[in-house]
Amino acid sequence: MAEEVKLLKTWSSPFGLRAFWILKLKGVQFDFIDEDLSNKSPLLLQSNPVYKKVPVLIHNGKPISESLVILEYVDETWKQNPLLPEDPYERARARFWAKFGDDKVLASIWNAFIKQGKEQEEAIGLAIETLKFLEEELKGKRFFGGEKIGLPDLALGWLANLIGVFEEVIGVKLIEKERFPLLSAWMQEFAEAPVIKESWPPHEKLVTKFRAIREPYVAAAAQPK
Amino acid sequence: MAEEVKLLKTWSSPFGLRAFWILKLKGVQFDFIDEDLSNKSPLLLQSNPVYKKVPVLIHNGKPISESLVILEYVDETWKQNPLLPEDPYERARARFWAKFGDDKVLASIWNAFIKQGKEQEEAIGLAIETLKFLEEELKGKRFFGGEKIGLPDLALGWLANLIGVFEEVIGVKLIEKERFPLLSAWMQEFAEAPVIKESWPPHEKLVTKFRAIREPYVAAAAQPK
Repeated sequence: MAEEVKLLKTWSSPFGLRAFWILKLKGVQFDFIDEDLSNKSPLLLQSNPVYKKVPVLIHNGKPISESLVILEYVDETWKQNPLLPEDPYERARARFWAKFGDDKVLASIWNAFIKQGKEQEEAIGLAIETLKFLEEELKGKRFFGGEKIGLPDLALGWLANLIGVFEEVIGVKLIEKERFPLLSAWMQEFAEAPVIKESWPPHEKLVTKFRAIREPYVAAAAQPK
Repeated sequence: MAEEVKLLKTWSSPFGLRAFWILKLKGVQFDFIDEDLSNKSPLLLQSNPVYKKVPVLIHNGKPISESLVILEYVDETWKQNPLLPEDPYERARARFWAKFGDDKVLASIWNAFIKQGKEQEEAIGLAIETLKFLEEELKGKRFFGGEKIGLPDLALGWLANLIGVFEEVIGVKLIEKERFPLLSAWMQEFAEAPVIKESWPPHEKLVTKFRAIREPYVAAAAQPK
């Protein structure tokens, strides 16, 4: 039976990119649909009734949601170019950093992005403290996955382009080369790796999008209390 | 080499219980240390420098943090009584529900627990909407893992005792048998399963603990605005 692999994503979603990357890195043939989240397709609503969000991977009619779950599914289903190591302890470490990226890095950077004034200063301080763990983890390694791109690299990959977008919108440098030499080098190497480098959404379009997302927070903070 | 397996937990943590359960279900010999979180041990601080939280599993000197990561590690390291199915799609579903439990069920029930008045009513409504997905998922199944306890059952297992504790503290029934017949039956069967049933912390002690945790929220809501 021919495999039918379909990815529901959006043009800009960093979570969708993870799924896109792993399918490309595995050499899996697939179609993708860029959803319009203001007018979600019946296929999306029916495939992810719990969250109604992208990404959803549909493999031979069976839907899988949640980007980290999709990464593990693809790694287990198409065994070529494994993204997780074989050793259970190394696998646990990879999962730990992938989860840390979503639970802590993303959350702290998002706060730095939407807050204003004194609250933003504090949020930036916390984001930098969080990023220091990544800098530490990269000591002696080229990628979070070791010598090659692994699952935590795909999970953290959004840093490599969205940090630049966020920095441009808020006018503050979050990842400075002097403070984060290893993380900066990783961002550059990851961004330019084969497969990855052809997949980035246009920078200017992202800046416009995230400037609009931030606008209500700026307006709310400017209101008299 | 003799295996050295040590679990850092607390007497009450539902996350610690997950790790405790899986080690027991696998028949792994291990020691555990009940941490006092107001005075964390040097071993805890050194084993989980990122979160400084329990549970931490230390296997032959190597620490693993994050309870869902620990579950996968134990399942991969000791292969007897597998807690995840073999089929990648079924594994993805198991991971999806385990993550849903942490991201949505726990968060929505915690909100229902700490909020007051009108905000609490809304939070209870949202928690019930969230729990309906679990009820739906149990259709035609005895456990979330199918015919036997699996990884999502361990991840969601805290419901089986903490819901009763929360209900007693706030004086509101969250999981009513009439509305959630399958979830209620699952809670009972899970709570009384071998290994699980001997592991529950004392109910009255939990009620006292969570009443104290809720107190500041009650006091804050009672203050004149």
